[in-house]
Amino acid sequence: MKPVTRKSLLFLAAVLPVFSRQVLAQNPVQYVNPIIGTMKMGHTFPGATVPFGMVQLSPDTDTIPYAVNGRYHPDVYKYCAGYQYNDPTIVGFSHTHFSGTGHSDLGDFLVMPTQGKLQLNPGVATNPASGYRSAYSHANEKAEPAYYSVKLDDHNIQAELTATNRVGFHKYTFNNGGDAHIILDLMAGIYNYDEKNVWTFVRVENDTLITGYRQTNGWARTRYMYFAISFSKPIKSYGYSSDHRNVYGGFWRKFDLNHNFPEIAGKNIRTYFDFDVKAGEAIQMKLAISPVSTQGALANMKAEVPHWNFNQVKAEGQALWNKELSKISINTIRESDKVNFYTSLYHTFLGPTTYMDVDGSYRGLDMNIHQAKGFTNYTTFSLWDTYRALHPFFNLIQPSKNADMVKSMLAHYDQSVHKALPVWSHHANENWCMIGYHSVSVIADAILKGATGIDAEKALEACVNSARWKNYDGLGWYMQLGYVPEDKNGSSVSKTLEYAYDDWCIAQLAKKLGKTDIYNEFIQRAGSWKNVYDKQTGFMRPRLSDGSFRDKFDPLDTHGQGFIEGNAWNYSLYVPHAPDTMIAWMGGKKNFARHLDSLFTMELPDKYFENTEDISRDGIIGNYVHGNEPSHHVVYLYNHTGQPKKTQKTVRMILDSMYRPLPEGLGGNDDCGQMSAWYLFSALGFYPVAPGADEYQLGSPLVKDATITLENGNTFTVETVNQGVKNVYVSKVEWNGVPLKTTAIRHSDILKGGKLKFYMSAK
Amino acid sequence: MKPVTRKSLLFLAAVLPVFSRQVLAQNPVQYVNPIIGTMKMGHTFPGATVPFGMVQLSPDTDTIPYAVNGRYHPDVYKYCAGYQYNDPTIVGFSHTHFSGTGHSDLGDFLVMPTQGKLQLNPGVATNPASGYRSAYSHANEKAEPAYYSVKLDDHNIQAELTATNRVGFHKYTFNNGGDAHIILDLMAGIYNYDEKNVWTFVRVENDTLITGYRQTNGWARTRYMYFAISFSKPIKSYGYSSDHRNVYGGFWRKFDLNHNFPEIAGKNIRTYFDFDVKAGEAIQMKLAISPVSTQGALANMKAEVPHWNFNQVKAEGQALWNKELSKISINTIRESDKVNFYTSLYHTFLGPTTYMDVDGSYRGLDMNIHQAKGFTNYTTFSLWDTYRALHPFFNLIQPSKNADMVKSMLAHYDQSVHKALPVWSHHANENWCMIGYHSVSVIADAILKGATGIDAEKALEACVNSARWKNYDGLGWYMQLGYVPEDKNGSSVSKTLEYAYDDWCIAQLAKKLGKTDIYNEFIQRAGSWKNVYDKQTGFMRPRLSDGSFRDKFDPLDTHGQGFIEGNAWNYSLYVPHAPDTMIAWMGGKKNFARHLDSLFTMELPDKYFENTEDISRDGIIGNYVHGNEPSHHVVYLYNHTGQPKKTQKTVRMILDSMYRPLPEGLGGNDDCGQMSAWYLFSALGFYPVAPGADEYQLGSPLVKDATITLENGNTFTVETVNQGVKNVYVSKVEWNGVPLKTTAIRHSDILKGGKLKFYMSAK
Repeated sequence: MKPVTRKSLLFLAAVLPVFSRQVLAQNPVQYVNPIIGTMKMGHTFPGATVPFGMVQLSPDTDTIPYAVNGRYHPDVYKYCAGYQYNDPTIVGFSHTHFSGTGHSDLGDFLVMPTQGKLQLNPGVATNPASGYRSAYSHANEKAEPAYYSVKLDDHNIQAELTATNRVGFHKYTFNNGGDAHIILDLMAGIYNYDEKNVWTFVRVENDTLITGYRQTNGWARTRYMYFAISFSKPIKSYGYSSDHRNVYGGFWRKFDLNHNFPEIAGKNIRTYFDFDVKAGEAIQMKLAISPVSTQGALANMKAEVPHWNFNQVKAEGQALWNKELSKISINTIRESDKVNFYTSLYHTFLGPTTYMDVDGSYRGLDMNIHQAKGFTNYTTFSLWDTYRALHPFFNLIQPSKNADMVKSMLAHYDQSVHKALPVWSHHANENWCMIGYHSVSVIADAILKGATGIDAEKALEACVNSARWKNYDGLGWYMQLGYVPEDKNGSSVSKTLEYAYDDWCIAQLAKKLGKTDIYNEFIQRAGSWKNVYDKQTGFMRPRLSDGSFRDKFDPLDTHGQGFIEGNAWNYSLYVPHAPDTMIAWMGGKKNFARHLDSLFTMELPDKYFENTEDISRDGIIGNYVHGNEPSHHVVYLYNHTGQPKKTQKTVRMILDSMYRPLPEGLGGNDDCGQMSAWYLFSALGFYPVAPGADEYQLGSPLVKDATITLENGNTFTVETVNQGVKNVYVSKVEWNGVPLKTTAIRHSDILKGGKLKFYMSAK
Repeated sequence: MKPVTRKSLLFLAAVLPVFSRQVLAQNPVQYVNPIIGTMKMGHTFPGATVPFGMVQLSPDTDTIPYAVNGRYHPDVYKYCAGYQYNDPTIVGFSHTHFSGTGHSDLGDFLVMPTQGKLQLNPGVATNPASGYRSAYSHANEKAEPAYYSVKLDDHNIQAELTATNRVGFHKYTFNNGGDAHIILDLMAGIYNYDEKNVWTFVRVENDTLITGYRQTNGWARTRYMYFAISFSKPIKSYGYSSDHRNVYGGFWRKFDLNHNFPEIAGKNIRTYFDFDVKAGEAIQMKLAISPVSTQGALANMKAEVPHWNFNQVKAEGQALWNKELSKISINTIRESDKVNFYTSLYHTFLGPTTYMDVDGSYRGLDMNIHQAKGFTNYTTFSLWDTYRALHPFFNLIQPSKNADMVKSMLAHYDQSVHKALPVWSHHANENWCMIGYHSVSVIADAILKGATGIDAEKALEACVNSARWKNYDGLGWYMQLGYVPEDKNGSSVSKTLEYAYDDWCIAQLAKKLGKTDIYNEFIQRAGSWKNVYDKQTGFMRPRLSDGSFRDKFDPLDTHGQGFIEGNAWNYSLYVPHAPDTMIAWMGGKKNFARHLDSLFTMELPDKYFENTEDISRDGIIGNYVHGNEPSHHVVYLYNHTGQPKKTQKTVRMILDSMYRPLPEGLGGNDDCGQMSAWYLFSALGFYPVAPGADEYQLGSPLVKDATITLENGNTFTVETVNQGVKNVYVSKVEWNGVPLKTTAIRHSDILKGGKLKFYMSAK
């Protein structure tokens, strides 16, 4: 257990006797520990942000280049969130981060305060004195929702960060007097391809106001981010370094461009701003961002932080968090479960992020500026991950925001030259990561669960067009043959299975809208999973375009077996929309349950996944991979075999082993909140096996009780009787006092409000 | 005499007997020969454009890189306009050009139709078959206002171009059937630094619509131009080449990115669009541009050319030209003078160019999108050149447009982080070329000559701030010492002289607005020219910061003598606002006249200017350099010596020798119309020696008569009696029948309308 966590727990222990349950529920911020997941695979960041905030202001401990001279650098994966808990130095604080992803980008506008001799390069971690970076200690680090502070040892500066939606607020207290520098490094960034920067542009508008932007070619191919900086104290002098050719053609001789020249542009610019400070003096800085323009950034700053009261911004940010986190109030067996629960809830609210200015304007896929009319435009859709539990969780806890996310996806569709919904999109770019067209799941699930304000006809059109795009990733073959042939397109089995599920979602939406033709087309496609099931081996198996199954086949291996980031053992179970048929095909309930038992208990040697970045030993139970997404529904399949007790027991085991209140506590990438959403559903006792269906499968709640305030004003309560660490089995479940006859509960029933009561037992 | 010119003259000879003078005046387009100036130093372009059009669609015969690996390429200077008459091949047709500049940029969106095997590189002029370029012949070339056509020999394609303000309209007639390609080369551009391209972005929106943009780092440091292309026929297939790293991170495997993939981005992209054509079939293409967005480009296209009628666009373009050119109708001694006159008038209306979308939005210096409220926003201000005669000419012929140009300069000032007016600005960038702050001359001249709608108080503020900017180009020293010291800042004498004149302009404006303090400050500064006058040598001479004149001094040499693009002989005469005092200081009228005689008759050996690009033998008379700007007022100084006959004789000599109706007819860069404006004023018989004064000095008109329709509805007429090629002397001048007692006429009198009658004689 690491210092910060221990500290949190000590803090908990200290305050617990004082507050009643109700008071605690009103201050869930205290249970959130943003450090959880920042070590190893979690890829979360510890910095300051508000719920769904555009600014996510966080320390970067290093940002290994993605590639140098075109060669991939293996360590880049570690730095998807810019911060690794074990690193000894902080390079600076940047304003945009992904939370929990397995691929990297962003890291815009890295700021670092220093003292003494100006150094305009970051230096190296083994010798922080070689650059502007600084050593720090976790003992001097504090991470809370909307607040982060750390002492920068090399410069003896106390750095404090808070944020509004679009503004990062920095407070640097200089313990020593003398020359102070604030560095704005426009070269720094996450996923630093050796040529990531395309252009940077900086204007010193006056002695306290800086504006500018950066264009990058990182994971997002054509990405712009604009900023406006306001300093609390006038700049004494400033300058920059650049590796670019002279910034003004042949006419640079007119000026001293190196000192106090207020227009700077080029490819790789680092700027610095000098101040005189007294010992103990604080310089504050607001940095607003905009996807549109520097005008937009400035307007965002004026609208959101028209003052210099750091504590007010922090308090308002934490109040926002308390408001969102208080949508669920819980009692738990152990206090550490509250930390896990509210930190998970916190992580689910870190994305998708707001992507528009205060006036509603935002950059579209076509690089034009669009206006979000009647909705908040969001970005960062890690859909292969988040369609599974995060968006379904939002349909329960954040239905209005989820509806806006759907509207954002439909805006993407409108702007798409392919007329396709997002696959993995961020910051006005489609990066095409992973597989499937899972936007359709998010859209169908939202509409079927009663989301309002979405043009359903248009949404269906977008789903159908996305699913009929023949040039997309083997889809033409799939439409022709009923499966993606491995000899034509890799990861063919994963694609076939996920397309089939997505098609089922489209069919459900079509049915709701009375579009029989579309329903018939897609419900037929939804059965395509059968085309890759190999009765002989009992696994889903890659098939060739001639109709035969591919010879070489190892169902344990994650590499080159027709799957993506998973092996046949895990991925073969991916028929979430037809589990009963699948189980029947796979030998019936009994055999299937035994198959699942093997999955959770057999041993998976390292060699089968060691080259797959997204899978690590920490996220594996037997051969079951919880640290990555494809099997997230699997534990609930026991319910379909008549052995729900195994679901119950295993869920509790996963909750305990895969989510620990530690820096290294997450066994896999949090993936923009998907991993956390799994925790939250499961801790509440149910899970959406097939988003798009009205149904949740029941598991075994971890909470003692939970009260969910629904957006429609109703209250949904989970209660347990005889809850305990060992009482993981459910002997009876009542819905509003009536015993349930199945292992499922309907979303539509939950919406009406009511009480779900679990009777727990140790057997 | 080259074919096109001969053809024009033959055409003239054929039509002249048929039309009456009045009819001719209504069709001045026929006299314009856009080929004039396209060979050697003129740097004009022959392509299609409307008056002050944003699109200037013209063939590029080559675009030598400005520099490769940072080393300057001497041939780049030839290609400022993209076209050199003697070149044997055409690379393609691009949509933006400077007219007559001595520095280069633009050349956006080069399009080339080809047939046969696709070649995606331009190839070399010595072997056009090595690339997409084509040989052509001037016999098959036709250049008119708003129309250009040429046969592309290698591909047997007839290319025709016309344009509206924001749309280039291409018509390509394929004489052979078969595979046709239209290439859009986003790498091509003028001033191609080896790294000029920053980013390019292309979307194939559907099978007839393409959108995209390009960002460049050329002469303009941070320049964006957007486009929308519409084809008259659906594309059969398309693709691109790129030297950039894979365009979609690691996820390119999903697609065939090389064929028919509709999103293309990267640094150096060349795209092609394939069609099947029948022999004789024409494909038409509209390419609209916008400084704002692809949305803007599309809106521009829809607003300006919502149809496919090439001939209509051409006819409307030529009607626009006839409207503008008909503001002056003339009779001349020789018909070739009409060609010179209307071609000069045409050249003066090629810039500044429109720089905003149809909805008034445009990109500002701060890269934000601004709205031009109540004015047309213009760009390309080559002010060191154009303040002398072009803007004064606009105050006579185009006062409303000139007022909008002033408003555009003030908008630049508002957006400037330096709070400075433009020096040499284009496309939302200040390039800082040349010296002075001559915006103040343009502004003062406009306001003092009655321009309406300009906020004069604000204009004065902008002038004063620009003139008090201490960090600008020696200005701090000038303000401190009364001159720019050569040891602190080069070209010090030129700067001192031009600052002094500019300051006089500010003083005039301040006086008009009753700002006595400002008047006093700047009228005092206006005398600074005296501080660099060396009585010993009789020349303006570089002075050091210790007050002494610099030792080494050669008044003939253009290099390193304290002047820019001129020698002391020419530049010493630059006190346009105080010629009488200057003449007194320089030895009195008689001596000064003798000095001028020497200037026009002495010999200037090549070595004194051979490394100065902007001066060539073709533009020199004796030691007088007409091919560059600093001496443009000099011939009118004879008037101040009591010897106006020498002004008269020499003006006519310059008109005849420096302006010839030939491709090589211009003895120097036309410099965005400044050279042409000199011609027009002088051909009409007067010239603005000191813009900012209400006065013109009289010369010797070349026209037989001229009728100028003023914007205020009045008519100003120049008439001659006994005009003839040899009758270059003026024996008497009458203003509305009253003989003039001085050699000057007032602008304010001209505005009232009236007749200026010159009595000509051979002696």
